[in-house]
Amino acid sequence: MRTEIASLGEFGLIDHLTKDIKLTQKSSIKGVGDDAAVVDNGENRTLVTTDLLLEGIHFDLVYTPLKHLGYKAAVVNFSDIYAMNGKPQQITVSLGISKRFSVEDLEDFYSGLKLACEIYGVDIVGGDTTSSLTGFTISITCIGSVEKRKIVYREGAKNSDLIYVSGDLGASYMGLQLLEREKSVFDGDKDFQPDFGGREYLLERQIKPEARKDIIQLLEENGIIPTSMIDLSDGLSSDLLHICNRSNVGCQLFEERIPIDYQTAAMAETFNMNVTTVALNGGEDYELLFTVPLHLHEKMSKLEAIRLVGHITPPEQGCYLVTRDGQEMQLRAQGWNPIADE
Amino acid sequence: MRTEIASLGEFGLIDHLTKDIKLTQKSSIKGVGDDAAVVDNGENRTLVTTDLLLEGIHFDLVYTPLKHLGYKAAVVNFSDIYAMNGKPQQITVSLGISKRFSVEDLEDFYSGLKLACEIYGVDIVGGDTTSSLTGFTISITCIGSVEKRKIVYREGAKNSDLIYVSGDLGASYMGLQLLEREKSVFDGDKDFQPDFGGREYLLERQIKPEARKDIIQLLEENGIIPTSMIDLSDGLSSDLLHICNRSNVGCQLFEERIPIDYQTAAMAETFNMNVTTVALNGGEDYELLFTVPLHLHEKMSKLEAIRLVGHITPPEQGCYLVTRDGQEMQLRAQGWNPIADE
Repeated sequence: MRTEIASLGEFGLIDHLTKDIKLTQKSSIKGVGDDAAVVDNGENRTLVTTDLLLEGIHFDLVYTPLKHLGYKAAVVNFSDIYAMNGKPQQITVSLGISKRFSVEDLEDFYSGLKLACEIYGVDIVGGDTTSSLTGFTISITCIGSVEKRKIVYREGAKNSDLIYVSGDLGASYMGLQLLEREKSVFDGDKDFQPDFGGREYLLERQIKPEARKDIIQLLEENGIIPTSMIDLSDGLSSDLLHICNRSNVGCQLFEERIPIDYQTAAMAETFNMNVTTVALNGGEDYELLFTVPLHLHEKMSKLEAIRLVGHITPPEQGCYLVTRDGQEMQLRAQGWNPIADE
Repeated sequence: MRTEIASLGEFGLIDHLTKDIKLTQKSSIKGVGDDAAVVDNGENRTLVTTDLLLEGIHFDLVYTPLKHLGYKAAVVNFSDIYAMNGKPQQITVSLGISKRFSVEDLEDFYSGLKLACEIYGVDIVGGDTTSSLTGFTISITCIGSVEKRKIVYREGAKNSDLIYVSGDLGASYMGLQLLEREKSVFDGDKDFQPDFGGREYLLERQIKPEARKDIIQLLEENGIIPTSMIDLSDGLSSDLLHICNRSNVGCQLFEERIPIDYQTAAMAETFNMNVTTVALNGGEDYELLFTVPLHLHEKMSKLEAIRLVGHITPPEQGCYLVTRDGQEMQLRAQGWNPIADE
């Protein structure tokens, strides 16, 4: 018997393989199913998250400088720790490399890693470097820490909670579209100079994203602990559904409130794409999506850089996008990284 | 400028890339350079180790059942935690998979993982599953715990300490040679049945190795904390040199004392290989190599399953193998996994 992986999809496959896993160790507080695993260490909680990045799937070296790739590979892991309301502190870095790469290439990659670690206050504490017969393979694990009482899971959202998002959405995806377009124009023309004028923001969001350490600090300074939180890696739609499913609640998300940058909107128009679809499903925003009790509304409204986008409803009401013209459309998960064909 | 990675070698490359990394976080106790990183968690120490396994480099699916691969992928990480005198408690599992694999294949892989976790008392707490354009990619990170005062590094060996090794060496490497031979015979013959009669031990050591949890328990029961320890993944020669370099000591290793199983010796003869070379450089033994102060000699001699193989000398005396006929040969590092050609 052979069941194709595509028949389950990415999330279905993970669920299928991990559904019967039980936690047996006293120190295992939280396993599969959140941004990071949670380990009891007595005083605090240790957070552990890991990411595997494969050439041709997660990055294209044609338009990704290795220094930026190193920076991004680190930052996306930090983002997972922030999404638990924690502080990233250490990373381990495993690389699969082939003869195609020189020592200087790896120095570039490491310089990006180190820069990210310096900026975010994280140490590189270990890893593994091995040969690869194929592409460049990156596996990073990040260890973080958080006070017990401050940890935020995906599963704590309650009916009537307000839904907030940091920054703006869809820019990274439009940056990727732009890079893909220039790459295909570039093909076969050695002297081609890509035209990115005025689109720097989109490219930066794709190639050198930042994790929202500042938002975690802002919430802490204001004494706010979200009831649930996730980082936006798969896209607003997919990630909000993770919160709703884990929390066993519904939601209403208001289209007119989704924060979108001017450049994102302009680029979507150029590409003849619906900008709301881009913001909902684009992914790789690395913004924070979180819920807060209704009574904190006034306090929240004074914070810049975050935006109210909707509210949590009872589970039987389902998960909906309320469009500009008042229609309700069911939210659907569309990860940006389906199990690809070989 | 382009410096080929081969000019530095595997260990040289890691040193080159990580030599200027400084630890800045209070909780970072130990970074790159041991079997696992060490993080302060207040009461105890958290250990973190990670391994990246790539198809065609670390395993050949032609003769590696996926269930065994899952078992081995977990166990080799547990081994790194035991090598710090710690207890593995959690793992995260990241997989890169292509369309070539079915859901049933991944179930097999996970069944091996789960079996190893059950036997060793470890929880699977997270991970990442992504598509791969090429081969099967496995990245496992293991979290362990150890009491502060019991942690053992590579760097604590002292002059006159005794050197011990558990189990026997070289069997895994001979198992690999056997599998490679049968594979090349098999090529082009569909009905070929490999002849492994009497060689089961060698195959098991290669395909389904165990980590030496029992040795760590034995040492604990006897109140013995080694001065330095490493697990034998690269080979006795290479791994003993790691201890000596980190501890700034020399060593004398006695050829006649290196534990070798009868099957290993017989197979080496069949393949016309020097069995000492096999034991020194074969790798993937996953036995423990450790040093203990001289005054514990009597106590140690009562423990079965470990063997005295040499002693630590002052650094200026260098690192030598004393052969059966009394000659001294300098030990050289020969990792089993050089950066391969593409």
